[in-house]
Amino acid sequence: MTDRILTLGIDIGGTKIAGGLVADSGEVVDCLRRETPGHAIESVENAIVSVVDELCDRARAGSYGEVVAVGIGAAGWVSTDRSTVLFSPHLAWRNTPLRAHLAHRISLPVWVDNDANAAAWAEYRFGAARGHDTAACVTLGTGIGGAVISAGRLQRGAFGIAGEWGHTRVVPDGRRCVCGNRGCWEQYASGRALARAGRELIEVAPAAASVLLDMVDQDGSRLTGADVTAAALSGDPAAVELVREVGTWLGEGMVTIAMIVDPSVIVVGGGVGALGEVLLGPAREQFIAVLPGRGYRPAAEIVQASLGADAGMIGAAELARNKLV
Amino acid sequence: MTDRILTLGIDIGGTKIAGGLVADSGEVVDCLRRETPGHAIESVENAIVSVVDELCDRARAGSYGEVVAVGIGAAGWVSTDRSTVLFSPHLAWRNTPLRAHLAHRISLPVWVDNDANAAAWAEYRFGAARGHDTAACVTLGTGIGGAVISAGRLQRGAFGIAGEWGHTRVVPDGRRCVCGNRGCWEQYASGRALARAGRELIEVAPAAASVLLDMVDQDGSRLTGADVTAAALSGDPAAVELVREVGTWLGEGMVTIAMIVDPSVIVVGGGVGALGEVLLGPAREQFIAVLPGRGYRPAAEIVQASLGADAGMIGAAELARNKLV
Repeated sequence: MTDRILTLGIDIGGTKIAGGLVADSGEVVDCLRRETPGHAIESVENAIVSVVDELCDRARAGSYGEVVAVGIGAAGWVSTDRSTVLFSPHLAWRNTPLRAHLAHRISLPVWVDNDANAAAWAEYRFGAARGHDTAACVTLGTGIGGAVISAGRLQRGAFGIAGEWGHTRVVPDGRRCVCGNRGCWEQYASGRALARAGRELIEVAPAAASVLLDMVDQDGSRLTGADVTAAALSGDPAAVELVREVGTWLGEGMVTIAMIVDPSVIVVGGGVGALGEVLLGPAREQFIAVLPGRGYRPAAEIVQASLGADAGMIGAAELARNKLV
Repeated sequence: MTDRILTLGIDIGGTKIAGGLVADSGEVVDCLRRETPGHAIESVENAIVSVVDELCDRARAGSYGEVVAVGIGAAGWVSTDRSTVLFSPHLAWRNTPLRAHLAHRISLPVWVDNDANAAAWAEYRFGAARGHDTAACVTLGTGIGGAVISAGRLQRGAFGIAGEWGHTRVVPDGRRCVCGNRGCWEQYASGRALARAGRELIEVAPAAASVLLDMVDQDGSRLTGADVTAAALSGDPAAVELVREVGTWLGEGMVTIAMIVDPSVIVVGGGVGALGEVLLGPAREQFIAVLPGRGYRPAAEIVQASLGADAGMIGAAELARNKLV
């Protein structure tokens, strides 16, 4: 199999870094995952280089094929030339020339993309958005990422920031957001929103939140969105109710996507997206209930992403591969 | 000049119908305007046929050139095959096969498009959006129309409804909208919003609204958005203050466009757009003040449309011309 051409995809979120060797079929030949080592620019870059080195070593040792390029999906807004991270709401990048920094340390061509763009591209090429001419992907993790594919092209916008609906305002003077504004959608429909709702429940109605409290040794301040997600998946009625609230906000914001992008499918991925129908049922209900012109226009399908946690690395690798042709 | 190939563009809004004979340069060779004769489907169709007949007669009589196709920009959501008006918030169309209805009565090829799509296409080809790869157009009339151009293509979306940001929700449980929902952007930033603000001022503070009251013979219920627009253009401080409020909401909603579409220019047209800097100044201030990542990303220019009231007919004609090649 040594004649196989592989690209290496890296997915960098606020809390984890994942790397994979990816074939042109979308198959992940080998991969590894690490915690993001703090938010400092240099330590994130060190982690990227270390993941690339280790995966290239493994490719050689295992004769998996030739690694020809590296694609990075980064949790930030990336310039249209795919070299600079303009801004990251969750990490330290501010006009950071990530591609140039890495070019000194990685001997392969490197392309940088937004992490949600990468995940969406993977779902479009190999997953739940395949076959749709116009697709929107909503990546629900700590925050909300997004991307638009239209006529088979990832829509980057004029400055590389298209599809960033996590920071569209849904409530005037609403909750303060990590981006500095108030009322952003991701404060109402994300892992952070689930955690906030869970902690509020614990504070106000601890008896109703006993399952959640048990998960964090009775210390409500430690509750995360992942905890609420896990409790809801295990059937805890209180957690399911919290997910329903967040799902309703999810559907509400999807209407904005429908009115501006008008996709035939909205794919929901990311860690919180793994909730599936517990979350997507309420989202779909709200979406259909408030879609303008409902009854006189087709409605987008709302479906779960199919590539799970691998979507970001697969898409980053595939986007780097596309640069070769 | 008889060898010139012309297309006929028709712009149908909630209150007026305009038709024009348009050359491939965008020049309007001849045109006429009429009131929309009620909102009934048949009377609107009769008016279209009458405008087409009269303009074709004039083209023959004046030897302007050969009219080869008709393009219609309709105030409604048009299917991607450009034949059916799915829904019109302001007129009676509900899944109405407008193109088929007209094909029986007009001997030329007919193409139907959304009116804001048509106006945006004109601004992109011949006006204020020329030279921009990714552009958004906001048409401010009674309501808000919109369209997106990306990589030189009008973005229609999967179902023909892309760019309909007038009906994105900016205030949960907000003002009731003509589309049936609550809190739509066009209830806060449109001619209707200006009229509402003016009538409220008259009711609560008639002394401050004396200029507006004089325009409607002291009958506040007759005040329209066009009245407030005219008063603001003539410098009435009360009207300017109302325009400032609406402009702030305009800038607020433009942030949503920037985050999802990420254009390099946002062109503001339509009757209310004619206010120019009185409106665009406050819009730009709010846009810059609340744009997420401000300071670390380029901001779209916000500019006035340059084709005025002709944009819809020019764009409809040009979109029909594009179907010929």
